[in-house]
Amino acid sequence: MASTVAIGSTTREKLERARAASARLAQLSTQEKNSLLLKMAHAIETNEAKILAANDADIERSNLSGAMRDRLLLTPVRVKEMAKAVRDVAALPDPIGEVMEEWTRPNGLKLRKVRVPLGVVGIVYESRPNVTVDAAVLAFKTGNAVVLRGGKEAAQSNQVLAEILAAVSGVPAGAIELLDSSTRETVQELITARGLVDVIVPRGGPALIAHVVENALVPAIETGAGNCHVFIDESADLEMASRITINAKTQRPSVCNAAEKLVVHRAIASEFIPRIARELSQAGVELRGDEESRSLADGIAPASEQDWGEEYLRLCMGIKIVGSAEEAIEHINRYSTKHSETIVTANESNAEKFLQLVDSAAVYWNASTRFTDGAEFGFGAEMGISTQKLHCRGPFALRELTSSKYQIIGTGQIR
Amino acid sequence: MASTVAIGSTTREKLERARAASARLAQLSTQEKNSLLLKMAHAIETNEAKILAANDADIERSNLSGAMRDRLLLTPVRVKEMAKAVRDVAALPDPIGEVMEEWTRPNGLKLRKVRVPLGVVGIVYESRPNVTVDAAVLAFKTGNAVVLRGGKEAAQSNQVLAEILAAVSGVPAGAIELLDSSTRETVQELITARGLVDVIVPRGGPALIAHVVENALVPAIETGAGNCHVFIDESADLEMASRITINAKTQRPSVCNAAEKLVVHRAIASEFIPRIARELSQAGVELRGDEESRSLADGIAPASEQDWGEEYLRLCMGIKIVGSAEEAIEHINRYSTKHSETIVTANESNAEKFLQLVDSAAVYWNASTRFTDGAEFGFGAEMGISTQKLHCRGPFALRELTSSKYQIIGTGQIR
Repeated sequence: MASTVAIGSTTREKLERARAASARLAQLSTQEKNSLLLKMAHAIETNEAKILAANDADIERSNLSGAMRDRLLLTPVRVKEMAKAVRDVAALPDPIGEVMEEWTRPNGLKLRKVRVPLGVVGIVYESRPNVTVDAAVLAFKTGNAVVLRGGKEAAQSNQVLAEILAAVSGVPAGAIELLDSSTRETVQELITARGLVDVIVPRGGPALIAHVVENALVPAIETGAGNCHVFIDESADLEMASRITINAKTQRPSVCNAAEKLVVHRAIASEFIPRIARELSQAGVELRGDEESRSLADGIAPASEQDWGEEYLRLCMGIKIVGSAEEAIEHINRYSTKHSETIVTANESNAEKFLQLVDSAAVYWNASTRFTDGAEFGFGAEMGISTQKLHCRGPFALRELTSSKYQIIGTGQIR
Repeated sequence: MASTVAIGSTTREKLERARAASARLAQLSTQEKNSLLLKMAHAIETNEAKILAANDADIERSNLSGAMRDRLLLTPVRVKEMAKAVRDVAALPDPIGEVMEEWTRPNGLKLRKVRVPLGVVGIVYESRPNVTVDAAVLAFKTGNAVVLRGGKEAAQSNQVLAEILAAVSGVPAGAIELLDSSTRETVQELITARGLVDVIVPRGGPALIAHVVENALVPAIETGAGNCHVFIDESADLEMASRITINAKTQRPSVCNAAEKLVVHRAIASEFIPRIARELSQAGVELRGDEESRSLADGIAPASEQDWGEEYLRLCMGIKIVGSAEEAIEHINRYSTKHSETIVTANESNAEKFLQLVDSAAVYWNASTRFTDGAEFGFGAEMGISTQKLHCRGPFALRELTSSKYQIIGTGQIR
């Protein structure tokens, strides 16, 4: 189907180059792709000075400070880490070409379902320049062409990184394209380029993701938002409950698999709430609770209805008391963003109920929500965490960057 | 995430009922679902008179004729076929609950990926009332709630059918909801109801599909358009080539897997073109060809650039001469809608090239494109043929109406 929105000629040329490259990329063998990935890693290392100079210019121009500046900043160590990430991807198994299923029909037709690249993958992301390399090499490993649209703060870093990867001898022209980040028009062009782009992956904050999902005409994979819950059941080992709560909330509060809400069974609330409130406060966590939890410990501010659905992404936690595992499940299914939730319990039947009925991408029993991550699951590098139900759900990595096709072999069959 | 568009209260109530039902449907056992499906089949049969009366009223009011009237029309035989289709779905294996993968991480976390329902599936379709039953029971079998938005011509038939299915004792309230078809607003409400609906499937003509895909905020599965190609290679058995061409073009020209274009290798064109042109003409097929094909046989009108990309859906066929299998592949990848294409050849290496390089959902060697169909593939009833690369590609049936989730069991693990 042809594209349905006007696309400027600069972007169109890049998308058409990517489309043409995708046909060539689909034919590269695993060995060819891995050998080119190792060359890309080497090229990143040998161009360290050039990368750092471009990044210096970005840092100076952007005039950011604090966490924002840190996200943009590249250092010699970070450049080495980028190169290592590329080698890690080269070492992962190649999903392309896998025969997923094979069967023969009564009429003699032989069918097989094989794993193929998606084609052209568009990535819209924010300031971290390492995403440029991550996304490009994950797409390359899976035989996809990639069209990158990064944040304007990282414009020069991204430009240099994309050029270094694309310039590796043997990489098909158009395999890695970077769109102009100085205008928002290129985002719109990319996400509406039906027929030229096969899938869009937004990587960034809630505003970016919402913008892409609401405006894309190309199918998009929604990633990221995590209003994650820890539920402490009646029979929980309170030592474990405390350890998991503190870890899920405080180990890295700014990421999507960090916990935002603590749900506690009434039967143990008078023992657990004072203890966990003290420990969380000592860790610098602001607490907001329902009336009942506030009556059990000092220092808990009242939670509003809005709190239950909010993803704080900082040291803040909502606390809710419930009368049963069923009530906890109901509360979670009502307010969660369907990312990651955990139950701490010694009761197997409640655990099974929780694992079955909580409608989230990753559901845990006696473990921290922080494990929802491609590397922690054993998938290697990931593109993101899908919180939608179509195509892939949860951490998505190489295998989720593929599609399938049916090959059917006959001897002249007709209907 | 909350819905981002204003939804009227009538539709909102239906969607919220469906959302609530989806939680209950996910808990039904295979046995419970199958037993309810058999009751639905029985209810269709015992309500035959009521169904036919509603359909009579639709036929009278719609004032349609010919093929359009036939699509809308129900007869006692067609009602029996609907009931049989429901029994067939009951007999299919239930994909829900399948453990797709299981593994243990070095830290002792046990992970499993299990197949779960999508949740709430929205279907937007046109005049055929049997889609109401098909879509409802496929969704039901996979533990999904379904929200149907049928064509206005079939309003009363659809109303009666949906009521009969939903009224079966034991079916959760809200499992099968039907939206008002007298206003286009309900389409917009359904396809933008993020947070209430998990996936939209449009079933119908190109205009309907384009409208849904371009306006949906809920992830949609694009179905249907088929500008399918038959390529006759140099080494083809011309008897087989002719049989496959005639079958693919004429056996049912109005469906998406019917062939629209014939691509012929130059080396056999002077022998094959006169023969196939005569046979196709005798079968009532209008022919439009490139200059070279027109020089080889009478009765071929000139093809325009637009012809190469067009899905005729009627007895019309475009003819193109090429110099090699590579040129055929290039032509097909340029103009096809990525549905179904076939090569007729005795040359295994060309066949493998075609199967690998043609970027379509179903690629055939020595068989008619007409086999791209859920039943022909052995999947049972289907929801449609996906021509996009995300989530599912090709015929999609029960398994494609599911999502997955990760269940992770620990012993107190933290990061």
